[in-house]
Amino acid sequence: MTLTIGVDVGGTKVAGGVVDPDGKVLARTRRDTPAEDVAKTRDVIVDVVTELAASHPVTAVGIGAAGWIDAARSTVLFAPNIAWRDEPLRDYVSAAVELPVIVENDANVAAWAEFRYGAARHADDSMIMFTVGTGIGGGIVLGGELVRGAHGIAAELGHMLAVPSGHLCGCGRLGCIEQYASGHALVRFARAGARQEPDRATGLLALAGGDAELITGPMVTAAAQAGDPVSQHAFAQIGHWLGIGLADMVQILDPQVLVLGGGVVEAGDLLLGPTRRSYVEALAQRGRLPVAELRPAELGNTAGMVGAADLARRR
Amino acid sequence: MTLTIGVDVGGTKVAGGVVDPDGKVLARTRRDTPAEDVAKTRDVIVDVVTELAASHPVTAVGIGAAGWIDAARSTVLFAPNIAWRDEPLRDYVSAAVELPVIVENDANVAAWAEFRYGAARHADDSMIMFTVGTGIGGGIVLGGELVRGAHGIAAELGHMLAVPSGHLCGCGRLGCIEQYASGHALVRFARAGARQEPDRATGLLALAGGDAELITGPMVTAAAQAGDPVSQHAFAQIGHWLGIGLADMVQILDPQVLVLGGGVVEAGDLLLGPTRRSYVEALAQRGRLPVAELRPAELGNTAGMVGAADLARRR
Amino acid sequence: MTLTIGVDVGGTKVAGGVVDPDGKVLARTRRDTPAEDVAKTRDVIVDVVTELAASHPVTAVGIGAAGWIDAARSTVLFAPNIAWRDEPLRDYVSAAVELPVIVENDANVAAWAEFRYGAARHADDSMIMFTVGTGIGGGIVLGGELVRGAHGIAAELGHMLAVPSGHLCGCGRLGCIEQYASGHALVRFARAGARQEPDRATGLLALAGGDAELITGPMVTAAAQAGDPVSQHAFAQIGHWLGIGLADMVQILDPQVLVLGGGVVEAGDLLLGPTRRSYVEALAQRGRLPVAELRPAELGNTAGMVGAADLARRR
Amino acid sequence: MTLTIGVDVGGTKVAGGVVDPDGKVLARTRRDTPAEDVAKTRDVIVDVVTELAASHPVTAVGIGAAGWIDAARSTVLFAPNIAWRDEPLRDYVSAAVELPVIVENDANVAAWAEFRYGAARHADDSMIMFTVGTGIGGGIVLGGELVRGAHGIAAELGHMLAVPSGHLCGCGRLGCIEQYASGHALVRFARAGARQEPDRATGLLALAGGDAELITGPMVTAAAQAGDPVSQHAFAQIGHWLGIGLADMVQILDPQVLVLGGGVVEAGDLLLGPTRRSYVEALAQRGRLPVAELRPAELGNTAGMVGAADLARRR
Repeated sequence: MTLTIGVDVGGTKVAGGVVDPDGKVLARTRRDTPAEDVAKTRDVIVDVVTELAASHPVTAVGIGAAGWIDAARSTVLFAPNIAWRDEPLRDYVSAAVELPVIVENDANVAAWAEFRYGAARHADDSMIMFTVGTGIGGGIVLGGELVRGAHGIAAELGHMLAVPSGHLCGCGRLGCIEQYASGHALVRFARAGARQEPDRATGLLALAGGDAELITGPMVTAAAQAGDPVSQHAFAQIGHWLGIGLADMVQILDPQVLVLGGGVVEAGDLLLGPTRRSYVEALAQRGRLPVAELRPAELGNTAGMVGAADLARRR
Repeated sequence: MTLTIGVDVGGTKVAGGVVDPDGKVLARTRRDTPAEDVAKTRDVIVDVVTELAASHPVTAVGIGAAGWIDAARSTVLFAPNIAWRDEPLRDYVSAAVELPVIVENDANVAAWAEFRYGAARHADDSMIMFTVGTGIGGGIVLGGELVRGAHGIAAELGHMLAVPSGHLCGCGRLGCIEQYASGHALVRFARAGARQEPDRATGLLALAGGDAELITGPMVTAAAQAGDPVSQHAFAQIGHWLGIGLADMVQILDPQVLVLGGGVVEAGDLLLGPTRRSYVEALAQRGRLPVAELRPAELGNTAGMVGAADLARRR
Repeated sequence: MTLTIGVDVGGTKVAGGVVDPDGKVLARTRRDTPAEDVAKTRDVIVDVVTELAASHPVTAVGIGAAGWIDAARSTVLFAPNIAWRDEPLRDYVSAAVELPVIVENDANVAAWAEFRYGAARHADDSMIMFTVGTGIGGGIVLGGELVRGAHGIAAELGHMLAVPSGHLCGCGRLGCIEQYASGHALVRFARAGARQEPDRATGLLALAGGDAELITGPMVTAAAQAGDPVSQHAFAQIGHWLGIGLADMVQILDPQVLVLGGGVVEAGDLLLGPTRRSYVEALAQRGRLPVAELRPAELGNTAGMVGAADLARRR
Repeated sequence: MTLTIGVDVGGTKVAGGVVDPDGKVLARTRRDTPAEDVAKTRDVIVDVVTELAASHPVTAVGIGAAGWIDAARSTVLFAPNIAWRDEPLRDYVSAAVELPVIVENDANVAAWAEFRYGAARHADDSMIMFTVGTGIGGGIVLGGELVRGAHGIAAELGHMLAVPSGHLCGCGRLGCIEQYASGHALVRFARAGARQEPDRATGLLALAGGDAELITGPMVTAAAQAGDPVSQHAFAQIGHWLGIGLADMVQILDPQVLVLGGGVVEAGDLLLGPTRRSYVEALAQRGRLPVAELRPAELGNTAGMVGAADLARRR
């Protein structure tokens, strides 16, 4: 039984695990991310791998990290929350731990984990996953393989255009879907709703000490679950745009399964309901033709670790 | 040297050719399409194949047709301009001509031809093609293979959303990109421009006998090439939206090459110029990262025949 | 007691009435409109006035007609459904009937009637009316007077922009609110809905003999009242845009009252409900400041006749 | 010759002047605004009036201030940059200076000044002015009178909807025109352009020390005037939306003259050119009908003082 290590490098934590071929995590460890210190972050990754490799006979290491990774899966071209620029992460870690290493985008590894062991494990060919956290990431599997793109930068699903001349995106363009369907958008919609209609947002405002500017994503989820109408409407708004984005994926790639993952998905039917309605409406013109089933992600936080480990096994 | 037959089934013509492994058409023939008679259309296809097979030793037949084709490439589920509904075209033709047959969507076969022998022949892995005729079709090649989708209906690129609540599409939804970037849209923009600013559209209106409602696509192309500003602006308008759609393809799939084909492309730089500007602007946030080169299609009308024949060879 | 005649010139009927200062119609008559014969249409108007004037001592005549009327209220510059172009209607009728005549836009006279005798009769200063028929007309009263504009062409409320790059309007521009909030839009939304989701539109399709293309406005109203969800959604869609247009009127002119009139309003709360929700939501940022009350028109078909007569009295 | 005082209360300065019936400023004074101290701000206004009244025989005082003023022109309901809430400013100042006082919105007084003495002085009936500073204010004159609205809050032209689901406005709604056509939008467009295409924004970035986030409005104006293409494009973008907003004013109110004022207008043809093109294009469907002339404001910073004084004279 081949064991591999998966490492999920986040902006605040580096989490590693030993994963078996069934996707089971046999051991795990985690460290804080010294995000502003490039060299220390590398060494924390090496520490995590070294610790896990000491107790398990592993054959390879997979690292998942937010950012643009090159097509060879060796260099982090740019990372949004760590100070990496053209960082040759694969070779550094490989030399230090004396194991083969691959580096992969975090949304890609999560999608791969869901394809192999999670919400799309019954699919044998294709799935597309939207990972909706603060921003929106994506992962695409076609023909049983992750689509990495000619330059390693496919599946940037958050930067499809949703609204021409729409809200300014962090990327500099107006109207990317990330500005309408992400956790960031959820909070923006909820704050606007609470300012406009405070009488209908009493539950949400109570959590924020009465100040709409202090509303956070977890508050919107909690208030929505407790019945707060402004919070529920904020979920309906992002679900509307998610459904449109998912429907575009069907028009373009016609996958077997669509998966919705990321922290925002914890809201369950509060998000899935409106998303599904919008998705079905946007595809109504397909008539009675089959379209991809839409499912919530199942692996939660461990998806990154499991997906990275599995990709390392298959390198 | 294996020879195969490619048949391009259009709404007005059925064109067939014998194609060699270098993509050369060794012989060809064509018939009118009896589009409203399902049985006769089948028989015309059989006639075309039989005629060509009589003079060349062919091993297989590929048929390209507008419409939704099932994942097994055997049945036309729905065709927009022929009265086929769940038509088992592969088995009928195969039995009649005693050769293996595959059926494929017309935009897919054209894209495949450009990938193998045309504008993207230097690409070894991935390309995406927008075929801009009256409507918009698409073809996607990834990993050196045509992406057909889980249900055979991938690459319906004309039905990505461009404008929320936008112009009514023939599919029933508001705002599909086909309503902004197709030949149909070109004519609509040109007619509206000529009605609004007749003094700037004298060249175009002269071609239409003075009546904006009689403006056709070829008139817009001719007038634009002769310097008519309203016609040139109509090309700029569809180019703007095409650039946005192409940029979305980069965000989603990061291909090696993008190809723009179909009848509208005959306008050359009148269309390619604005398309390229819009494409570059929409991707400006990628900074210095490489993105797909954008090229015009090279094979023109023979793409369908050549692509269908090549897919039959590789079946 | 001064009596005047009001004449409502429509595309199919010319209806005239003798109206007293309380807005009561004391006598009325109607003729078919020979819409394609300019001279005959003039004479039908003269006939209607002559008949009414024979039995009542009237002092002036007001004529309401669709189209652009000049600032002097004498000439029809352009009419959409009658072949008038720069038609000196006032002087022709006045010479024939030997009475003072004014000509006014049909939506303006209807708005004036509602201001004086209908839904806005309690307002002493300002009201704005959207007349939603096949298209959208408007009327604006400020300072107790009809706003006619510097060139006689104010209150073309149907041609405010609703959706940039939106649906093509008959006027040649993309995205006018008339394309989203008129009776024409209602039918378009309903047909699209019935095509997309026939199972939810069985009531509506039954009225149209099963063919979505044969759906008419009265069918949508009837089906919506009987509970058909696709028809109700079509009303919700136009109500959404009407609410936005009405809210813009508050931002621009802050009137005492807003009135919604025209044939589509017969649907009652099916239209008023969604309109009011959208209106309130669009103005939520005004907080607790007062905004104009939104009311349905009260005078129905007689508004044109009554308003024209009253404007003639006040000429 | 009646003299009156006009006071322009801004967020940083209180400027007062003695104005004669020809709109000439005979004397002026200014103080800093203690914006966070409501009582002190009142007293600064009183000081300014007292100083001016000591040397000139004035008969009334007009005060222009940003914010919502009640219909009686006595109370500031809400001010965006001074801590006034339901502030009875008229009565306080009137009691202190023993003169009649009126309070009016700052964009209204500026529009009135342009109507009487500035860019629209040749108009005898109607004009509409967009004041484009950081935000967008408006003023409407119809029938020779300022349109104040039923509740004193007309002409909030910055909060007409421009883009459905567009950029979040400070008012809480998505897509107000202020988010696309104001000085704030100019800076946002310029920053985004400089981030996306730094090679084309070298002139602009040089002014900002190389950091796009430090770009300010005056920098964009200076760079645009020096030929910086990204800065010029930012002006073209806001001009596009201004033209659409101005065209909507023609559709709604058909005024004699449209005036564009506010600090952004100092860019001259860099802004007026694109604005005029967009305005003309949006109204092209009116064909050969006359539409309002579009002119830049002429009075600059003194418009507020002059307009307030003139309204006080006419109270």
